[in-house]
Amino acid sequence: MTQFEQAKSRLSTLKNDPGNEVKLKIYALFKQATQGPCNTPKPGMLDFVNKVKWDAWKSLGSISQDKARQQYCDLVGSLVAAEGGSSAQVAAQPAGSEATYETLLVTTEDNITTIKLNRPTKKNAITTEMYNDIVAALEQAAKDDSVLTVFTGAGDFYCSGNDLSNFTKIPEGGVELMAKQAGDLLRNYVNAYIDFPKPLVAVVNGPAVGIAVTALGLFDLVYATEKATFHTPFSQLGQSPEACSSYTFPKIMGVAKASEMLLFNKKLTATQACELGLVTEVFPESSFQMEVWSRLKAYAKLPPNSLALSKQLIRSTEKDRLHAVNDAEVERLVERWTSDECFNAIMSFFQAKSKL
Amino acid sequence: MTQFEQAKSRLSTLKNDPGNEVKLKIYALFKQATQGPCNTPKPGMLDFVNKVKWDAWKSLGSISQDKARQQYCDLVGSLVAAEGGSSAQVAAQPAGSEATYETLLVTTEDNITTIKLNRPTKKNAITTEMYNDIVAALEQAAKDDSVLTVFTGAGDFYCSGNDLSNFTKIPEGGVELMAKQAGDLLRNYVNAYIDFPKPLVAVVNGPAVGIAVTALGLFDLVYATEKATFHTPFSQLGQSPEACSSYTFPKIMGVAKASEMLLFNKKLTATQACELGLVTEVFPESSFQMEVWSRLKAYAKLPPNSLALSKQLIRSTEKDRLHAVNDAEVERLVERWTSDECFNAIMSFFQAKSKL
Amino acid sequence: MTQFEQAKSRLSTLKNDPGNEVKLKIYALFKQATQGPCNTPKPGMLDFVNKVKWDAWKSLGSISQDKARQQYCDLVGSLVAAEGGSSAQVAAQPAGSEATYETLLVTTEDNITTIKLNRPTKKNAITTEMYNDIVAALEQAAKDDSVLTVFTGAGDFYCSGNDLSNFTKIPEGGVELMAKQAGDLLRNYVNAYIDFPKPLVAVVNGPAVGIAVTALGLFDLVYATEKATFHTPFSQLGQSPEACSSYTFPKIMGVAKASEMLLFNKKLTATQACELGLVTEVFPESSFQMEVWSRLKAYAKLPPNSLALSKQLIRSTEKDRLHAVNDAEVERLVERWTSDECFNAIMSFFQAKSKL
Repeated sequence: MTQFEQAKSRLSTLKNDPGNEVKLKIYALFKQATQGPCNTPKPGMLDFVNKVKWDAWKSLGSISQDKARQQYCDLVGSLVAAEGGSSAQVAAQPAGSEATYETLLVTTEDNITTIKLNRPTKKNAITTEMYNDIVAALEQAAKDDSVLTVFTGAGDFYCSGNDLSNFTKIPEGGVELMAKQAGDLLRNYVNAYIDFPKPLVAVVNGPAVGIAVTALGLFDLVYATEKATFHTPFSQLGQSPEACSSYTFPKIMGVAKASEMLLFNKKLTATQACELGLVTEVFPESSFQMEVWSRLKAYAKLPPNSLALSKQLIRSTEKDRLHAVNDAEVERLVERWTSDECFNAIMSFFQAKSKL
Repeated sequence: MTQFEQAKSRLSTLKNDPGNEVKLKIYALFKQATQGPCNTPKPGMLDFVNKVKWDAWKSLGSISQDKARQQYCDLVGSLVAAEGGSSAQVAAQPAGSEATYETLLVTTEDNITTIKLNRPTKKNAITTEMYNDIVAALEQAAKDDSVLTVFTGAGDFYCSGNDLSNFTKIPEGGVELMAKQAGDLLRNYVNAYIDFPKPLVAVVNGPAVGIAVTALGLFDLVYATEKATFHTPFSQLGQSPEACSSYTFPKIMGVAKASEMLLFNKKLTATQACELGLVTEVFPESSFQMEVWSRLKAYAKLPPNSLALSKQLIRSTEKDRLHAVNDAEVERLVERWTSDECFNAIMSFFQAKSKL
Repeated sequence: MTQFEQAKSRLSTLKNDPGNEVKLKIYALFKQATQGPCNTPKPGMLDFVNKVKWDAWKSLGSISQDKARQQYCDLVGSLVAAEGGSSAQVAAQPAGSEATYETLLVTTEDNITTIKLNRPTKKNAITTEMYNDIVAALEQAAKDDSVLTVFTGAGDFYCSGNDLSNFTKIPEGGVELMAKQAGDLLRNYVNAYIDFPKPLVAVVNGPAVGIAVTALGLFDLVYATEKATFHTPFSQLGQSPEACSSYTFPKIMGVAKASEMLLFNKKLTATQACELGLVTEVFPESSFQMEVWSRLKAYAKLPPNSLALSKQLIRSTEKDRLHAVNDAEVERLVERWTSDECFNAIMSFFQAKSKL
């Protein structure tokens, strides 16, 4: 096996997603190494993933296949080496864990089931697999003996929202099929929150973006560190609100405040989010975990049926409406995802990011 | 008539309810005095009133019937004497009063009908009779010539909520029948607020607990002294929210704030309740009554039909929903009241209280 | 042509409405000049406009027709002279204007269509013509290429609400017909806001009164100068809330806060309105226009479909309800406008004003 063949097979052993920029670089070097400079015709505008890949390959210009092969090996080697030194993710798997997911830590202790996003190097961005895993974890938490269910993030971020790379895996059916599948996934994900039968608590340990913010309207308690921020840049990406936020946010804070977030991309501090009623209480970063968990442990000793039934009572008056809103939001987003406007906005986003 | 017979008959002349602890003591001494030490079998867990009575009797151990008789006479004598010295309640009946209720002062002056809870020694806790009396007073206020209707409390408390001793009067049909009757009473009570046709003002002169807090969501104005607090310890007692608060509280303050009150027993200060929109305005204790009443007297001079019709307009958009929420809450509570979880929580409450 | 004939014809050339008091004085002097002292029978109570005119004429007592003629000429002359010196309104018509309305400036620039009330000498009070013109301007803005639509006022006031002189033009069909026509106008006006398909921004440059305040609940963003105030004195005028405020205000701020505004005429400062969620943000007067417009220009560069569709999504969950609320409010107001209570309240208002 040549060094190049070895690099190719070592690539598949990577535990962490290296991110879009790196993956595009690897793709381009592989094409250049095996086929030489890019001479294929430029893909059409709507075929945006192939366009991005074509751009990456084209950007290598006329470097030789040998040189490309060497750069490919070096890049893969550095990624594998970097992971060898980091066993943080494995060590983080605690003894009491009951279910294992790739990038989710689910534990039950002191009557509390905790679902922790565990993809800190990617700011806990939610991949397609994670959406499904969170739904499974919520279904499990609904049935176990715990009294409270807590949602939080590993590392410095709470969650950076939808992983935009989800949009780059275009299936054979094209963008329309991808949009439909993403819509089904989203509808299912949000329904898991709407139907969750026990008190649901968000422990917002850092910045929250997109669907990690909008879903907060479906939580019963939201505790945030002072370092947390809340940002929903939908229109900037040519998209529209989800997770029932088009209904819950105006209900919580009034349309005049909700529009600044949902239409005009305003990023809130934790204190601002608390004043608007999106957050229950803000804590100093130094005592955040200690104060929040001691409080939650006390809450978890209260009569469980009384808590669950009271929570269900509060949500029952609007459950039908929440499902209808979820459907309407998903329908709108599926339309957005296949629109030129959205395509151009996401392209601009990736281009701006790759310039950094 | 012996001293014991006299004590027995004087007992029925007491104007004020001496409270559960004292009544249990009287019961136990009477049993011990007439039947000797408790030898009957321990009642079943669900028969919780008889269990409490049995415990009280059993706790007297083997003291003699003579000694029990003497203690019985002393206790009743002290209660009767205490009342002889206190004519506060009678004196509080003002000249302008139009209707007389046992523990309610209803007056009309300056176009304002005031319903004042008048059971200050019991922190204005609401007995079964008071629920019915308040409904009658509201029906009367709806029909009289007044422009505003004000609800307030005598003494230092606004209202400590439902008198838990209501739960100790188990009818022959058992706990199920008691729960059903209590549910009917509650539904009727809350409906009287939902359907009230004129502006309804709460003058919260001190701490408010339970249904005295939850019903505030059905008031049009809520003025509070800085000394007032707002506490709804439902889950602590194995119960669930009532008076439409499962709908009105999330609407007023958002679910993230409402859950802390309705699920997790958080007690709010007047300032906190004002920031969340449950209270219209907070006043310093020293000027509370003066400022509030001068304002209300000015309001009561406004065109009455305009006020009543505007209030009805505001409520009309949600009246059907409020009735549906009331029904759902009552149904849930009736189920709660017959549950072991609720039984145990209330027992713990009484036991903790009797230890003080 | 005599001086009196000249005055009569110059009167019709006035560009600005001189206000009710002045118009009544002109009417009275004309009657006295042409018919002598008032000897006709006093009009009935419900015929309130004729009653006001009769009072004005009667108040001239027995002054001679000559003297009345002279005073009439002097008064008209002073009004015409006053306007000759003021060409502000004409100069304010900017180059980029696309539509011309009598008292409305509608311009489109930087993807923003701005509808500016332009009747500063009357505090931008809305006349019957202006209601229709605003509806037309909104329909036009909905169809043009702009991304945002902004509503604001010329001069120091945002808008003083409904011009009460609208109520003094009683048609032949009497008060009932006037009320019905005013109701149709109002329903139509509010529907134009409910159905508006793009983000709608209020730039509140000064005090706002009545319908200028209540309609804010139908805007997506509300920016206010610190000098702005918010006042809805409905019950004081024997009327009731409109523009869906009976639904939007309780939703935004809770009933306990909304009632103080909608029932009890409380005037809010900009900061108070912002804390309650009626206003998005308050700016210092010195930098208000600069800060608000630079922000709006940035917003207007966002993807337009994403903005419009997101706005529609937010409103879609309550659009049917808003239409139903509008209908119910209009029905109630039509009833109010023909009531004695309302008649007396408005008469008191005019009398208090004319005493100043």
